[in-house]
Amino acid sequence: MPKNNKEIIKKIELLGKQILKEIKSGENPFLDIPIRSLSNVYYNPKTKMIELGLSKSKRYFFNVAHIRKFVQTIEAAATVTELLKVDKHLSLRQVFYAMRRTIKGTNIDVVDEQTESNQAIEDLELLTGFAREELHINAKKSGAAAGKIVIKDRGDIIDLSKMGSGGWAIPSNTEDVEFKKVDAKFVLYMEKDAMWERLNEDKFWEKNNCVIIASQGQATRGIRRLLRRLSDEYKLPILVLTDFDPWGFYIFSVLKYGSIALANFSNKLAITNAKFLGMRAEDIKKYGLERQIIKFKDVDKKRLEQIKNYEWFKENKEWQKQFKRMKDMKGKVELDALVTRGISFVSEKYLPEKIKNKDWIE
Amino acid sequence: MPKNNKEIIKKIELLGKQILKEIKSGENPFLDIPIRSLSNVYYNPKTKMIELGLSKSKRYFFNVAHIRKFVQTIEAAATVTELLKVDKHLSLRQVFYAMRRTIKGTNIDVVDEQTESNQAIEDLELLTGFAREELHINAKKSGAAAGKIVIKDRGDIIDLSKMGSGGWAIPSNTEDVEFKKVDAKFVLYMEKDAMWERLNEDKFWEKNNCVIIASQGQATRGIRRLLRRLSDEYKLPILVLTDFDPWGFYIFSVLKYGSIALANFSNKLAITNAKFLGMRAEDIKKYGLERQIIKFKDVDKKRLEQIKNYEWFKENKEWQKQFKRMKDMKGKVELDALVTRGISFVSEKYLPEKIKNKDWIE
Repeated sequence: MPKNNKEIIKKIELLGKQILKEIKSGENPFLDIPIRSLSNVYYNPKTKMIELGLSKSKRYFFNVAHIRKFVQTIEAAATVTELLKVDKHLSLRQVFYAMRRTIKGTNIDVVDEQTESNQAIEDLELLTGFAREELHINAKKSGAAAGKIVIKDRGDIIDLSKMGSGGWAIPSNTEDVEFKKVDAKFVLYMEKDAMWERLNEDKFWEKNNCVIIASQGQATRGIRRLLRRLSDEYKLPILVLTDFDPWGFYIFSVLKYGSIALANFSNKLAITNAKFLGMRAEDIKKYGLERQIIKFKDVDKKRLEQIKNYEWFKENKEWQKQFKRMKDMKGKVELDALVTRGISFVSEKYLPEKIKNKDWIE
Repeated sequence: MPKNNKEIIKKIELLGKQILKEIKSGENPFLDIPIRSLSNVYYNPKTKMIELGLSKSKRYFFNVAHIRKFVQTIEAAATVTELLKVDKHLSLRQVFYAMRRTIKGTNIDVVDEQTESNQAIEDLELLTGFAREELHINAKKSGAAAGKIVIKDRGDIIDLSKMGSGGWAIPSNTEDVEFKKVDAKFVLYMEKDAMWERLNEDKFWEKNNCVIIASQGQATRGIRRLLRRLSDEYKLPILVLTDFDPWGFYIFSVLKYGSIALANFSNKLAITNAKFLGMRAEDIKKYGLERQIIKFKDVDKKRLEQIKNYEWFKENKEWQKQFKRMKDMKGKVELDALVTRGISFVSEKYLPEKIKNKDWIE
């Protein structure tokens, strides 16, 4: 069993011992769980992250309204302990099944719906301070990476510069990935696989000494942890490439500031020095993309208004400028529109020019 | 330029020359395009594939109702020729932008919506007989592979048994992937990444001498071509693993028989000897999963009725038995439910047992 697993088990067992002690001494055992609702989430301008406040709520064993959730959290702790002991991982869905035990002598299952096991896992994360990846529970798997970096993963040495047209598939859980050799000078993260394939075919990462990473839409937790670790451990700038639209901006927002849903783990997921490389308002004129503007639908307009008012964007003049330009334009522009300038325009001209000029938003 | 590219360009140029000849001789040039509507799609019990019939329709240049589509098809041909000449690939979305040219002296764009460029590409596929991958147009990228196989791709030698926890990310276009060493005895395709991660962590492919491949939901065209080629070139059995529900059955159906939407390329995509390994009705009792049945919603019921009546399933007694059992059960069972029997039950017991007993549906 890896050392890290042992430490986590120790912490979970401490929690269990405390409860046992309370039972033995005739007390009403309780779990003291940080509140995850919006009222307890705030933006911290000092750390530049969305964080969880200090409010907690007590969940009692001898309380009809609490007992089901209490038992589910304990069951989650038991399941996680087993996973750590055998050093294996399960997905959220699989953990739901692993926890779906029928309580002896009854017809009651510990969990009926996955929402219940998910919440129990979140409780356990908050109680122990460990992220679900550390508890051996995997989130979504998506995305690929290629570039000037060699990793070690489950005993295999993997050179990401020798991955053909596909790249290395990024696992849902990247906690145990070791970096063996990092020649890259920066990381380029993009929201679309098709753009990744364009840059990979052009060997952009070879010509520009970098790593390219993409998933589809929002970055998975596995990718966010990989980016964060490359930022922390190797001080690599993380440059982000999305469409010029509110949804693309929000992908960047989550990467840099964290999200409300995962406010408890911003300290492990947020990449506070991520840089937004493009597409930005100025590029549209500069690269002659005016004809490629796609008119806003109501849903886009509404989303733009929401994002504009996010606390972390409010004081940022550069971002407010982008929002205003987008509002005036009444439309969005996709990165793929650069193809109108030439098949490899994005990798031969657009990106090298922007990177050289540090033409990004912090 | 690769030899294959040259041949395709030659075929496209022949098409162009014919049209030029017709113009010069004062005729009304036309394209003779196979009809893709449902009326021209049928199941061929001899080939065991869903195929396109012989009906065609003529599209004329001097015809107000035809000209826009005529020009779009020609523009698609020009774009593809350029891609082949520079030996680069674009996605469907990127091709839309590449074709979005404003016609000189007018304010008219060749294409306004991606549906137009998509249709033009399909026309070109049908006119030339080449699949879009051969025309250097990429579809969706998704999925990962690991196992006892060594490939060569864009000059890189990639050993799929040394890919750590992530696997090799499968590109959208697998036409140029070379198989260098195939030690695998079969391929296991599954619909969910989380199951793939379970099997990969258990090194199922090492213990059982195989390759494991997954995407999320329906297999991408890239994966279908990869499976098909391993079936054709190495006679590897392709075993399919999905949930016991109508949607899982349909994933298998598309892999084996092809689909209505891509009936024109069943001959390149359908894997006629694919085998459905599970989850099947009999497994539910055998492995004690009765409590894991998830009640059908109306949409599931309706889908089951549709699938039951597909021509290729109608005469198949084994499939009809599955449909009947599912209808009686009024519910579905997920593969992940095997976790209730143990974390690695699926890789240590369920799969080895089924494979040994050839417990599958053809």
